[in-house]
Amino acid sequence: MKDLNPSQGGIEDWLEAATRVGAALVKTAVARDREGRDPVEEIALLRASGLLTIAIPSAQGGGGATASEILRVIRKLAEADTSLAQLMSYHLFGTRIGLGGTNEDLRARRLEGFLKQGWFHAGIAQAAYPPLLEAKNDGAGYVINGAKPFTSGAAVADTLQVWVRFAEGATVDGADVSCQIGQFIVANPTEGLRFGGDWDAIGQRQTVSGGATLENVRVSRADLVNAAPEGTAHPPHVTVHVPVIQLSFAELYIGTAKGALRAARDYIATQGRAWVSSGYAKAGDDPLIVERFGRLSAQLAAAEALADAAGQRADAALAQGPALTEGGRGALAVIAYQAKIAAHEAGLEVTSRIFELMGARAAARSYGFDRFWRNIRTHTLHDPIHYKTHEVGDWALNGRFPAPDYYR
Amino acid sequence: MKDLNPSQGGIEDWLEAATRVGAALVKTAVARDREGRDPVEEIALLRASGLLTIAIPSAQGGGGATASEILRVIRKLAEADTSLAQLMSYHLFGTRIGLGGTNEDLRARRLEGFLKQGWFHAGIAQAAYPPLLEAKNDGAGYVINGAKPFTSGAAVADTLQVWVRFAEGATVDGADVSCQIGQFIVANPTEGLRFGGDWDAIGQRQTVSGGATLENVRVSRADLVNAAPEGTAHPPHVTVHVPVIQLSFAELYIGTAKGALRAARDYIATQGRAWVSSGYAKAGDDPLIVERFGRLSAQLAAAEALADAAGQRADAALAQGPALTEGGRGALAVIAYQAKIAAHEAGLEVTSRIFELMGARAAARSYGFDRFWRNIRTHTLHDPIHYKTHEVGDWALNGRFPAPDYYR
Amino acid sequence: MKDLNPSQGGIEDWLEAATRVGAALVKTAVARDREGRDPVEEIALLRASGLLTIAIPSAQGGGGATASEILRVIRKLAEADTSLAQLMSYHLFGTRIGLGGTNEDLRARRLEGFLKQGWFHAGIAQAAYPPLLEAKNDGAGYVINGAKPFTSGAAVADTLQVWVRFAEGATVDGADVSCQIGQFIVANPTEGLRFGGDWDAIGQRQTVSGGATLENVRVSRADLVNAAPEGTAHPPHVTVHVPVIQLSFAELYIGTAKGALRAARDYIATQGRAWVSSGYAKAGDDPLIVERFGRLSAQLAAAEALADAAGQRADAALAQGPALTEGGRGALAVIAYQAKIAAHEAGLEVTSRIFELMGARAAARSYGFDRFWRNIRTHTLHDPIHYKTHEVGDWALNGRFPAPDYYR
Amino acid sequence: MKDLNPSQGGIEDWLEAATRVGAALVKTAVARDREGRDPVEEIALLRASGLLTIAIPSAQGGGGATASEILRVIRKLAEADTSLAQLMSYHLFGTRIGLGGTNEDLRARRLEGFLKQGWFHAGIAQAAYPPLLEAKNDGAGYVINGAKPFTSGAAVADTLQVWVRFAEGATVDGADVSCQIGQFIVANPTEGLRFGGDWDAIGQRQTVSGGATLENVRVSRADLVNAAPEGTAHPPHVTVHVPVIQLSFAELYIGTAKGALRAARDYIATQGRAWVSSGYAKAGDDPLIVERFGRLSAQLAAAEALADAAGQRADAALAQGPALTEGGRGALAVIAYQAKIAAHEAGLEVTSRIFELMGARAAARSYGFDRFWRNIRTHTLHDPIHYKTHEVGDWALNGRFPAPDYYR
Repeated sequence: MKDLNPSQGGIEDWLEAATRVGAALVKTAVARDREGRDPVEEIALLRASGLLTIAIPSAQGGGGATASEILRVIRKLAEADTSLAQLMSYHLFGTRIGLGGTNEDLRARRLEGFLKQGWFHAGIAQAAYPPLLEAKNDGAGYVINGAKPFTSGAAVADTLQVWVRFAEGATVDGADVSCQIGQFIVANPTEGLRFGGDWDAIGQRQTVSGGATLENVRVSRADLVNAAPEGTAHPPHVTVHVPVIQLSFAELYIGTAKGALRAARDYIATQGRAWVSSGYAKAGDDPLIVERFGRLSAQLAAAEALADAAGQRADAALAQGPALTEGGRGALAVIAYQAKIAAHEAGLEVTSRIFELMGARAAARSYGFDRFWRNIRTHTLHDPIHYKTHEVGDWALNGRFPAPDYYR
Repeated sequence: MKDLNPSQGGIEDWLEAATRVGAALVKTAVARDREGRDPVEEIALLRASGLLTIAIPSAQGGGGATASEILRVIRKLAEADTSLAQLMSYHLFGTRIGLGGTNEDLRARRLEGFLKQGWFHAGIAQAAYPPLLEAKNDGAGYVINGAKPFTSGAAVADTLQVWVRFAEGATVDGADVSCQIGQFIVANPTEGLRFGGDWDAIGQRQTVSGGATLENVRVSRADLVNAAPEGTAHPPHVTVHVPVIQLSFAELYIGTAKGALRAARDYIATQGRAWVSSGYAKAGDDPLIVERFGRLSAQLAAAEALADAAGQRADAALAQGPALTEGGRGALAVIAYQAKIAAHEAGLEVTSRIFELMGARAAARSYGFDRFWRNIRTHTLHDPIHYKTHEVGDWALNGRFPAPDYYR
Repeated sequence: MKDLNPSQGGIEDWLEAATRVGAALVKTAVARDREGRDPVEEIALLRASGLLTIAIPSAQGGGGATASEILRVIRKLAEADTSLAQLMSYHLFGTRIGLGGTNEDLRARRLEGFLKQGWFHAGIAQAAYPPLLEAKNDGAGYVINGAKPFTSGAAVADTLQVWVRFAEGATVDGADVSCQIGQFIVANPTEGLRFGGDWDAIGQRQTVSGGATLENVRVSRADLVNAAPEGTAHPPHVTVHVPVIQLSFAELYIGTAKGALRAARDYIATQGRAWVSSGYAKAGDDPLIVERFGRLSAQLAAAEALADAAGQRADAALAQGPALTEGGRGALAVIAYQAKIAAHEAGLEVTSRIFELMGARAAARSYGFDRFWRNIRTHTLHDPIHYKTHEVGDWALNGRFPAPDYYR
Repeated sequence: MKDLNPSQGGIEDWLEAATRVGAALVKTAVARDREGRDPVEEIALLRASGLLTIAIPSAQGGGGATASEILRVIRKLAEADTSLAQLMSYHLFGTRIGLGGTNEDLRARRLEGFLKQGWFHAGIAQAAYPPLLEAKNDGAGYVINGAKPFTSGAAVADTLQVWVRFAEGATVDGADVSCQIGQFIVANPTEGLRFGGDWDAIGQRQTVSGGATLENVRVSRADLVNAAPEGTAHPPHVTVHVPVIQLSFAELYIGTAKGALRAARDYIATQGRAWVSSGYAKAGDDPLIVERFGRLSAQLAAAEALADAAGQRADAALAQGPALTEGGRGALAVIAYQAKIAAHEAGLEVTSRIFELMGARAAARSYGFDRFWRNIRTHTLHDPIHYKTHEVGDWALNGRFPAPDYYR
């Protein structure tokens, strides 16, 4: 199954594959947006394209994509489908979890799963608000209990990263881990793990981002990625994944806005009508339309260039490994959050404004042009943009880097 | 049936009635937005409220509402439901058609219809783009043929104003009206009149704004409101209805944005959560949220005040009757279009931005908060906002008033 | 000297007088902006116009202008000269101080001064930051000591309202007023009162807004307007002057922006050149210029309409006198601050953007077109706009009215 | 004089030199802005820094800086002084003129001038509007007559590039060049060349951008760089200098805005006062200030990243030499103009908004903080930004590249 291992490929191949998958996804975008069903077929498309393994280090048999390459692939997918691009963001960065360290059993299982069986990964991540899932010892292993809202992609994933808080008195290899935060890898399906099927949002409709309930879900010691006291000052090379994931969100908005602008361009070219009193034969010749299109294009290009620059910075920061300093992590966070702000603003502006350049008939649901705005508007709520702006301001004004947590 | 004739009432009563109807409509807003079905029950609610006859002159048994009073009622309704508010705009201003002039038969039929039978009015208006409906003589009367897209409310109305172009050689009372533009009143249903049921837009879903087909629809001489050569320089007191209707569009956006801001306020108060790193106990205490809310509030208040001022100007212009000058008509048009621009901008901004102040869970479709943006985004496409901006600029820069046509 | 008493006039006369004075001021605006000298001649112009006494109640021999009328006069003056308009704002509202209450000697002196001698009034107001001027008993009267920055107009005024803090142990009519806040009327010049002549700002250059030093300035009991403990919950009809003065600031920005837009229009009409590749013969015909002009016009019109509405609300609130409730005062404050925000935004936008519609030669200092932006940018720093936005947001989101203090 | 030849250096050295010169320039910026005198001492500073020769190819003894390196140096200088940065833009790209081709005499003279004598270059460029300077044969050489407004830097330059139109019947080497456009190198001073000393604009005050008059200015055949019919479709590698120069304008705005943001940061840190009702001890801790600062920072960072990307594109396009295609030139033009638009918007926003974050005392002329806005506002009038937006829109919407002329 040649496609499953693209390790001989490179970024140009992956972008081409993403373009191909995107072209297929666009054809059904309006219908899928309406249905909002589980993205099983769509993940199969991605699997067949070979894109699922690009983020696994090439030494371990994967594509060895750098962060900036992954981000470009996500942007390209988002041009066609913001839901699938979001799931791919979690999947691609998630495929790297558990591949390092001393847990050889886990590593072997995951490489086998991703490279041979085409696993799709998702997370049941740390929640913005308590309570967390709780893990306690049970025989040689552990049981996890609790519930978590917003588990994008988990219901359709093959393997899950599950964040837990260890119970009072819990131990790992005999050491006390009371109240520490841990991450287990859990197969899906697994007994005791249920999904609410309750995702029904105005956008990102195929992300199955509903809630999950865990009732005595059993995991073994070999499923544990790591554990550490909450609030521990993790080293920069560990917390650096937060700005990288935030940057992938910027890519969702940029890609979506690019898709929207292209859709508007195509509509105007093929269906646009010059306004009756404009004096022009074609809508595309009306300077008032052209100029507004130019403004959107320039705003979006600036956001995209900043995301590109942040991607380069991410590669450099990640390449440093444990040598990454707090300042290095902080500088990446600042540019990533600047990029997220610029992408957020450009994304909302482009996806809302295109309508008035296309005209009244573009409001027909059959075109589904509102999905661009709904997708961006939905995902931009992941965490408040005004806190990203505040964090950037605190650096620009006071020289303070964002204090690492689950969102910054 | 006391409610049908509110002629003893006044603006405060009408606003109270609109508030009452609005409160009922809000309860079903999300479901109706999803279904997008014909607004038959909703028009019945409006009929029962007595609001359908407020625009008929009090001397003729109606409420005698001024233009600014009608506009305030439309704004109030739009706070709850932009679709019904739009239909009411066409209805209320439409109830005055055919009540003046020498066509006593028509006047009597319409007063009877509105005041005794609770008629609802809509239009099959002049199209932005040709071809138009064509009328030709047929025996003592006329037959109308053709098709027209975008006939908001017509399918569920009892009486319709239909714009036609008279055929080559057509006559009225013996006079040649070849190629002139005329308006007939047509009952609904009428043989030969069919509606496409093809309205399925991203917003304004209950406006039944689909197309109509007229096949040999028969009308009589007594159904003719008037006829005049196209492009005729109609006097200012005739063309003044265009800025008034455009102003009612501004009211749709202002009312909708007020409804959206109130919905956001209520959500934040009851369901909002302070952000995890904010240090506040309540979302409503976070200065970053409060300040952004204040910006939206101020922008919307400015648009509203300008619409109020334009409404006063409309009353004054209409009160002049045939004495209205081109300059008087032009000055009203300018302030009405300024108000439309301000309402357009405030409406899009408020309805898109509220989400980031409410947070991630506000994207649930069960709340339907995106309907505000979808409704405004759909209706703001009625005619291009950049031409309104251009018309205002041409006055502000060059002292030229908008040249009257169907849109300005 | 007929002009000194305009009590037979009305708002139309005053606007005409303001227009006349404005036309004279515009002729020298560029030179005066450069020099920034004391506005002695300019105040003489205003005195001769009869506008100095319009705010004194007609029962006392003045013009009896309402707040909204005063605000319209300020706006009209600001169209020509923002410095003089600012000074007039303090003067006009200041002429009413000391005319009520039981201090007949003070009232008589002030009416004589304003109505017979053409006094100009200014204030040495409460400072944003401590320390305050201190007053202590000295024989039958008091001596005031201290310094205050930002005393707009005081150096050229004839009579001053001076805010003080009474010293520990100070008494008024035998009653202890330790640490209370009082206001004295002080003639200018007065022994011990010196002005720093240190106003040299980027805008509002003729407002002589430098600092003042008071060294044993002697005042009598009869010069005392009132005294009250700091932080006292003054009744709403007393604190209501804060939103009214803030509203006069909005008028400064609106008037200035109107003046700027008119200057740009005149420049484009007389000196504008169509861009070489535009294909138009006249700059004013270029749709890209026309449309941008229209946007500025609409934004400014919305701010102006909101200020008008707030002015009406101010009249109504002031007409209630001591019956004004906290809610009434609060509602006025909210609309006044909304108006200030809208005027701030429109003012900055218009005065900065006009340049790109006029073209490169409009940057010549001989035109002085940058004074509009510099004047607005300087005065908008009076108190932070983001706190006005926050106060409006706190009402819109949480229903809380601004807590009265010196700025809100 | 070691500093005159930095050819052993590289971009880091040049940026360090620019930082050093900038630090010196900032100290006198306020005074120089006020005086607006000829920048003779300042050019001497630049000469001493070794920066004047970085753009000359290293094979010819210069620094061999690429376009993107030159642009970064201009940006760095603009952080301190927008006037000198502008002059350096014309100088640096101008030092390359006449170094290629077959005119060995000219090449030798220019290399000697730049590398040994520290020449400063400026242009008397093609005018936006006719008439042009006219050259006609006179003996073995030519005489140039005419006048040109806006000759930035020319009055203080040592060598000038002068655009002319050849007179009817003029010849070059015997060939008819009637009405062709030519460029001569003219030494300054030269008999017959006079400068008006008439530059007195609101910003860019040290650019001596006044007019020049040429009265029988004699030039020789060896001073001629080239000649070609006007309107000739010059090949892409010739017209590519237009987007590169336009990009240098974007750098002026970005650098200036960076300087402004830094000045605001320093002011807030050292002189800022928390607002009285804010509840904060330091202005820099107020979230309303921090968040607004963050917004400015993000907008500026996006513009900067786009300019960086455009600079890379410029290097690639220039490296192609005559192989550059129309599409390659067009793609560079589009990203350069997108960058200019983003820089224009960010520049105006940052330089106007910083005031409200610093507070009232920041309006003192002694700080001169308004120079940032005045400098950007002046230079952004070089050619209309709405045509850049239109050109970008025409590409984004219609796929049309900007048609090369003197401005696009």
